[in-house]
Amino acid sequence: METLKLRKIGIDTYRENVAYLHRDCPVYRSEGFQALSKIEIHKVDDRAPVIAVLNVVDDEALLAQDELGLSEQAFAQLNLPDGTGVRVEHARPPASLKAVHRKIAGERLTLDEYRGITHDIKGNRYSKIEMAAFLVSCAETGMERDEVLYLTRAMVETGKRLDWGEPLVVDKHCIGGIPGNRTSMLIVPIVAAHGMLIPKTSSRAITSPAGTADTMAVLAHVELSPDLLHEIVRRERACLAWGGNAQLAPVDDILISVERPLSLDSPGQMVASILAKKIAAGSTHLLIDIPVGPTAKIRSRSAALRLRKLFEYTGDHLGLQLEVIITDGRQPIGRGIGPVLEARDVMQILNNQPDAPADLREKALQLAGRILEFDPDVRGGQGYVIARDILDSGRALAKMEAIIKAQGENPRTPVPGILQQPVLASASGTITGFDNLQMAHIARLAGAPMDQGAGVDLHCKLGEQVKQGEPLYTIHAEFASDFRFACEAAAKESGYRIEAAGPIRG
Amino acid sequence: METLKLRKIGIDTYRENVAYLHRDCPVYRSEGFQALSKIEIHKVDDRAPVIAVLNVVDDEALLAQDELGLSEQAFAQLNLPDGTGVRVEHARPPASLKAVHRKIAGERLTLDEYRGITHDIKGNRYSKIEMAAFLVSCAETGMERDEVLYLTRAMVETGKRLDWGEPLVVDKHCIGGIPGNRTSMLIVPIVAAHGMLIPKTSSRAITSPAGTADTMAVLAHVELSPDLLHEIVRRERACLAWGGNAQLAPVDDILISVERPLSLDSPGQMVASILAKKIAAGSTHLLIDIPVGPTAKIRSRSAALRLRKLFEYTGDHLGLQLEVIITDGRQPIGRGIGPVLEARDVMQILNNQPDAPADLREKALQLAGRILEFDPDVRGGQGYVIARDILDSGRALAKMEAIIKAQGENPRTPVPGILQQPVLASASGTITGFDNLQMAHIARLAGAPMDQGAGVDLHCKLGEQVKQGEPLYTIHAEFASDFRFACEAAAKESGYRIEAAGPIRG
Repeated sequence: METLKLRKIGIDTYRENVAYLHRDCPVYRSEGFQALSKIEIHKVDDRAPVIAVLNVVDDEALLAQDELGLSEQAFAQLNLPDGTGVRVEHARPPASLKAVHRKIAGERLTLDEYRGITHDIKGNRYSKIEMAAFLVSCAETGMERDEVLYLTRAMVETGKRLDWGEPLVVDKHCIGGIPGNRTSMLIVPIVAAHGMLIPKTSSRAITSPAGTADTMAVLAHVELSPDLLHEIVRRERACLAWGGNAQLAPVDDILISVERPLSLDSPGQMVASILAKKIAAGSTHLLIDIPVGPTAKIRSRSAALRLRKLFEYTGDHLGLQLEVIITDGRQPIGRGIGPVLEARDVMQILNNQPDAPADLREKALQLAGRILEFDPDVRGGQGYVIARDILDSGRALAKMEAIIKAQGENPRTPVPGILQQPVLASASGTITGFDNLQMAHIARLAGAPMDQGAGVDLHCKLGEQVKQGEPLYTIHAEFASDFRFACEAAAKESGYRIEAAGPIRG
Repeated sequence: METLKLRKIGIDTYRENVAYLHRDCPVYRSEGFQALSKIEIHKVDDRAPVIAVLNVVDDEALLAQDELGLSEQAFAQLNLPDGTGVRVEHARPPASLKAVHRKIAGERLTLDEYRGITHDIKGNRYSKIEMAAFLVSCAETGMERDEVLYLTRAMVETGKRLDWGEPLVVDKHCIGGIPGNRTSMLIVPIVAAHGMLIPKTSSRAITSPAGTADTMAVLAHVELSPDLLHEIVRRERACLAWGGNAQLAPVDDILISVERPLSLDSPGQMVASILAKKIAAGSTHLLIDIPVGPTAKIRSRSAALRLRKLFEYTGDHLGLQLEVIITDGRQPIGRGIGPVLEARDVMQILNNQPDAPADLREKALQLAGRILEFDPDVRGGQGYVIARDILDSGRALAKMEAIIKAQGENPRTPVPGILQQPVLASASGTITGFDNLQMAHIARLAGAPMDQGAGVDLHCKLGEQVKQGEPLYTIHAEFASDFRFACEAAAKESGYRIEAAGPIRG
């Protein structure tokens, strides 16, 4: 069979491999390929092929007839120099697709079937639509709890698994959806100051205005090599790093790249995704935070309880000590929304400044207290007091400073965006409701998390009285067009509900 | 907001619009786009935007920083000259995605919700993964029969609808899966010779070795303009054309582009797809052929009955007179598999040659007879006899020749592929089973339908006795590499089951 000359095409197609063939390429014609066919690209020595989706090129300036172009991701995967001879053929459908069809038909899959699926996904044998089919077939009530367990186990098995060599490795995770909820940056130094091992890695924001990694990046480097990360954790008992290049449960990352654009967030996938990552990261004890509120991810106490039980069942069967705490998700936590503003809140609390946001401090102490009680030497109910002592005494601040120094302090100090606009109360009354989604939307329009200083700074919270014309919050931005979009969105819908009288809803 | 200069990129991305932005493009940076984000491209006068998936370009030679590249499809849709100023922004999720999420959650959707979904799909607001999510949520038992009705109606409404101005416009459709089953090319001339209107449009093969359009293309032009097609139908009462550019139920074509690679073929989608196309094409009376067999699409009589009832329910509520016939799908019909070989079978039957394949002749007469009985003047039970008279008398042949002449006869006569290899019986005995899928696979490997002469020519069928070493079938190909692949596949698994004694299974 004819070979083609490999050529890197400088196009970033994210997590989807794309191959390019000229329409008059003899291989294209004889194989009966179509645009969007899946093809296999083989090295001539015939090791594992790279799978890619085909785009057909009509322009000789882009690609010659005897060339095979590959997008940046696919080229990196094949890992051969430009000009190498390669062959292409129709990709065989992944063997595990049969199991996906059975799942679509409502059947229950076995551990081995989930293993087959994760194996093929890791090998890039699934197209995005095949992954979408798998995810939807598992969505909502589509997975038995044993299947969630199988999927979690299969996802852990497809990646590396860290071993810290200690019996107690703690972590915490919030299922997300609440702006400003930056508790990890307080919990980690408190817990580490107590001496517990808490190697915290976090993601960057994808749909929210800031993730822990984005916020920590305001203060320190977060993209650490695995070696440096390990060294810091051994010395400081903690880190606050970006987890993106650790190759832990890589199938989870691939599935998330399809879940996010679909806004799919089914309980089974959520539990499997979170627990697979934590187990792969070597955690032995885990605290899960489930905020509940009318505009949170989980909107009712009964849904939160169902989710809690699914976490517990799966964690128990995988040997993970797991506690779930259901928290108030009716409004943003803290004052700042956006990396710089959230980092400011965190540092105010660590510095015990009197004007630090009390709600974020209190929530962090509650969660840290529960984690401290994973320590067999801590008496039940005493965690909170210990956490507060560590914070009040400045030991948490000292630990945070040590972590920042170890990771590499950010030499410049980013400041809140200089374009500022207060958003005013349209009427007098009591603040009775928040729209978390709208607050996050405004902060993202303002530029968060890409522009670190952009976001929203809240001046009042649920239950407070405001007078018409008083500022509810201030929008910060760094660029004029972002600033305008955010101000327009806030003018249309502030995200606050103010009522003359009546109870707080939610 | 900044405008970008439009540039056509000579890349064919089939049914998925792709846009290209340079990584250092200021708009890319300020908007926080990511590769695979969906973006909206607006003309400056702000009419309906074109939606595309974003690829990020790192190579100035491909695209400048102030340009927006569009793949061929997207460029054609936007329909503006190169260099025009356009703006881009994040695509808002289509409004109807909320209904898809409700469907994923197992809820039942209304007619208006299906209308919203088809409206957004037609407007290219759905990405492929969103379409996959919709299709999977509807798959298997996911749709109530009223929902099949709603989806069918909504698909009809999103395209053109032909009106032939006659009370009786007949059509037939086979749900597919049986190689060689080329009855339409016999039924159409028989029925038209009787005087009934049968404007038959067909698809090209996508996963099979030949579609009716591929086979008819051996004899005549099949890509006809709408005007020419109408003129031919008025004159000859029939056509045998490719239906691809008629813009009938266009949403169906878009959904099929996702269903095929997923091998999704759920009853609800199948019924909606077939009936929407037929109603849009102006049919008033329709015969559906459901072959049943162990390697057919429908594998049990009970599944065929369920499907029949779904066709009947939907057809009845949309004013379509519909008959379903359940046929023998245990083996290929006729001898040839592949365009030239199947066209040869058809012409042998029309010419009343004594060695013409009897099974294809018989099946075509049965189906034509049922269609003739749609005519109020034909007495129940007399259709078959009338059909046979039309065929035996040469009137069907004369009608076929008139249709061929009207559509434009193929000036060269393609012949069966000159590379030929008989596949021999590995043992003596009775042929007790066929693998339709393997026979189709071998024919496709041999080059069908792209190479018209490629395919498989069967020498014996179910129930016949063969001696070891006798030829079961002959592989035909036009190119050496295809020929080798097909012969290798047949050597591994011939597709025939031969047993020393015992009944025919299935």
